[in-house]
Amino acid sequence: MQPKGSLDGFRDFYPEDLARRTLIFRAWRSVARRYSFVEYDGPPLEPLDLYTAKSGEEIVTQLYNFTDKGGRAVSLRPEMTPTFARMVSARANALPKPVRWFSIPQLFRYERAQRGRKREHFQLNIDIVGEASELADAELLAVAVDIMRELGLGPDDVRAKVSDRRLLNALLEAIGVTEAQRGAVYAVLDKIARQPHVVSREKLEAAGLAPNQVERILALPDIGSIDDLERDFGHVDGCKASIAAFAKYVAHTHALGIGAWVDLDLSIVRGLAYYTGTVFELFDARGELRAICGGGRYDHLLSQLGGVDLPALGFGMGDVVLGELLKERGLFGDAVMDCPDFWVVCAEGAEPAAVLHAAACLRRMGYAAEYVLNEEKLRTQKSTAQIKAAERAGAAWLLIVRDAAHAEVRPLSRTRGEGPAEGAVIELHDLEDAERGFAALSEAGVPAPRED
Amino acid sequence: MQPKGSLDGFRDFYPEDLARRTLIFRAWRSVARRYSFVEYDGPPLEPLDLYTAKSGEEIVTQLYNFTDKGGRAVSLRPEMTPTFARMVSARANALPKPVRWFSIPQLFRYERAQRGRKREHFQLNIDIVGEASELADAELLAVAVDIMRELGLGPDDVRAKVSDRRLLNALLEAIGVTEAQRGAVYAVLDKIARQPHVVSREKLEAAGLAPNQVERILALPDIGSIDDLERDFGHVDGCKASIAAFAKYVAHTHALGIGAWVDLDLSIVRGLAYYTGTVFELFDARGELRAICGGGRYDHLLSQLGGVDLPALGFGMGDVVLGELLKERGLFGDAVMDCPDFWVVCAEGAEPAAVLHAAACLRRMGYAAEYVLNEEKLRTQKSTAQIKAAERAGAAWLLIVRDAAHAEVRPLSRTRGEGPAEGAVIELHDLEDAERGFAALSEAGVPAPRED
Repeated sequence: MQPKGSLDGFRDFYPEDLARRTLIFRAWRSVARRYSFVEYDGPPLEPLDLYTAKSGEEIVTQLYNFTDKGGRAVSLRPEMTPTFARMVSARANALPKPVRWFSIPQLFRYERAQRGRKREHFQLNIDIVGEASELADAELLAVAVDIMRELGLGPDDVRAKVSDRRLLNALLEAIGVTEAQRGAVYAVLDKIARQPHVVSREKLEAAGLAPNQVERILALPDIGSIDDLERDFGHVDGCKASIAAFAKYVAHTHALGIGAWVDLDLSIVRGLAYYTGTVFELFDARGELRAICGGGRYDHLLSQLGGVDLPALGFGMGDVVLGELLKERGLFGDAVMDCPDFWVVCAEGAEPAAVLHAAACLRRMGYAAEYVLNEEKLRTQKSTAQIKAAERAGAAWLLIVRDAAHAEVRPLSRTRGEGPAEGAVIELHDLEDAERGFAALSEAGVPAPRED
Repeated sequence: MQPKGSLDGFRDFYPEDLARRTLIFRAWRSVARRYSFVEYDGPPLEPLDLYTAKSGEEIVTQLYNFTDKGGRAVSLRPEMTPTFARMVSARANALPKPVRWFSIPQLFRYERAQRGRKREHFQLNIDIVGEASELADAELLAVAVDIMRELGLGPDDVRAKVSDRRLLNALLEAIGVTEAQRGAVYAVLDKIARQPHVVSREKLEAAGLAPNQVERILALPDIGSIDDLERDFGHVDGCKASIAAFAKYVAHTHALGIGAWVDLDLSIVRGLAYYTGTVFELFDARGELRAICGGGRYDHLLSQLGGVDLPALGFGMGDVVLGELLKERGLFGDAVMDCPDFWVVCAEGAEPAAVLHAAACLRRMGYAAEYVLNEEKLRTQKSTAQIKAAERAGAAWLLIVRDAAHAEVRPLSRTRGEGPAEGAVIELHDLEDAERGFAALSEAGVPAPRED
């Protein structure tokens, strides 16, 4: 019987894959922490109605939902926001505002399997609850951009496209678009880069918009700055306040040091979803990949989900597109698997027990230590064979146990090439005491162990 | 509409809960790394037959299994071993031996909800593949014990109960137990501490064992040392080899520095499962909790699952019982949520933009920095009110922005008590360059930022 493979769209993370995932997770956690966000998590399985309450019954076709053995309609989580809303709402009064939380859930969608499309991914979720000011919007965007920076990407690699629903609605009102027509306009703007203009034009006309209105709408994505906004709409009373508010948001992004990454792009509407204010997406600058990240302000969502009525904003950043970009840019170089700091060698005539003892001491000091995991081989295998195993494992240092009391410390690289150089000899006894041990190893040139 | 709660048996991890989980995960990863294990992961959803192939159809009653929208019979993973076996087998030839892998999957079982019983938990899985020697068994146990040590527990808190199926089988053969009777004896031994002796006796008699055999079996758990083994069975030819092998295993645990934690306990059989050699469980020394951890050698399992025929051993350690023990012993003290290193205050007359700029610089240096997330409040709120917010957030230091060029650095504690002491004044400009920034802050008494 051959073991079967995993399900289509689900990933096995072999150690080299997991190391890359860890590189991304570390950047997420490290930057989130610097912005003073604290981590939370919820169950990967939730009551089905948590999702239908937010997205309607039609979402069920995309879910991994089923009836459990107790007759409950349940679903693997397709997104984190409903769980987040439930948890924050349950403690809304006790939590200091603004709430600054992040999470790294694995999310599941039953999608038609396509090339590169997964049915699961990990997604950083960062949310702020309880602050309506533009500064919160800028801070949120700054976290997303700083994650790019942390991963080695620059403003030439990634662009942050930002817009604001309130601003867009004011501009559309100035153009004479009615609230009833707004949905059709959003849908056209959302697809404007991927759809021929003639199709966009037809759709806008079908929504009842006059030719001059259509032209002004199709020109909106050309607005690329606050100056453009002022020029085209600054004279309209109904637009002044939202242009000023948006200008504040942009000014804050500059004060926070991310201004060079940010482009105003009025075609960013984030579908027809629940956003109420700023919206943004991060894209690779070449425009070859799907969005790296998307989010914005959703001031009414928490109360719509039956929770607290507090202003809120957040974004989601998945590991798949980001991983493709890092791979393409050669930025996964550091994500090698951990290698042992030490390989402990049993020299001819030494006792295997001394090797075990030395390895235990090194480990207790915080070093990663490995050795040939077989007493008989420790006793009989030549040092050169053990050193080959150390090389295969990528160990940095050798600790060659000479006898019950002494060992030689050698960088592994020195053992290659021009024959065996002598290393520093230390007393094994010194390793039993961390302070003496660090002193002895440091004298032999070994750096302190990595902090976890 | 009130937001519904989570499913019974599933946990919400609020930030303070997540901090405790992170403390456990960190110890797991840190110790595993020191033993040179590398991390992997697999999908939480797998084909159902991956589990029925190992455990038979009866396991289905305990699974979160369902039919997905493509008609596949799938299940949330109840354990990691089948996934591990599939992944290792697929690359068995390419992987250097011994394979030393670990993973921290979340696992799911549909169990009747009881007090303290969860339907999900996280479980550290550590496995070694490709090494049959006793040294591998000792190394595996040493990882488990060192995790206890890493978490602050000692041999007075936790005991490692060890046995060996090969040894037990030899002893049972010496007593005259047939292979057909072995299952009944295992079942009695497994329950011997929780079941009245009279019941155990009845069950053994029902299996066809003679009174003197029954007495010798019931006395097996009293054997507590290699000496006891030698005394009672050392003269039996069929027992000599397995006693000697077991003595080697115990000697290795001493060389690895964990001998003081280990008790021989022949009642440890780990149910009727697939183990073939050493078996062990870790228990709290007071015997109040369920097992913290269990594992052993399973040399035939990989080939039975349709994979490679390689010796293998491993253990699983869940987060729930371990968490109960740490809580009870007061060892979660360090698992406080992260607090900001700095709170940036906007002094009267300073510009909010300077606060944002200072926060961005601190973050780029690696510090966690927070400030009042509202431009209007930054402009108008008194410093004392902002400092109160800093206290509520548990910030360690204040950076009080005085004007566009200067800020004062103060430890937060000094601001309490006898009125506002003056802190060190630094130039904001210095923070723009990491080296100059670290020098300026260090002079003000601020330690280097935490490494992630």
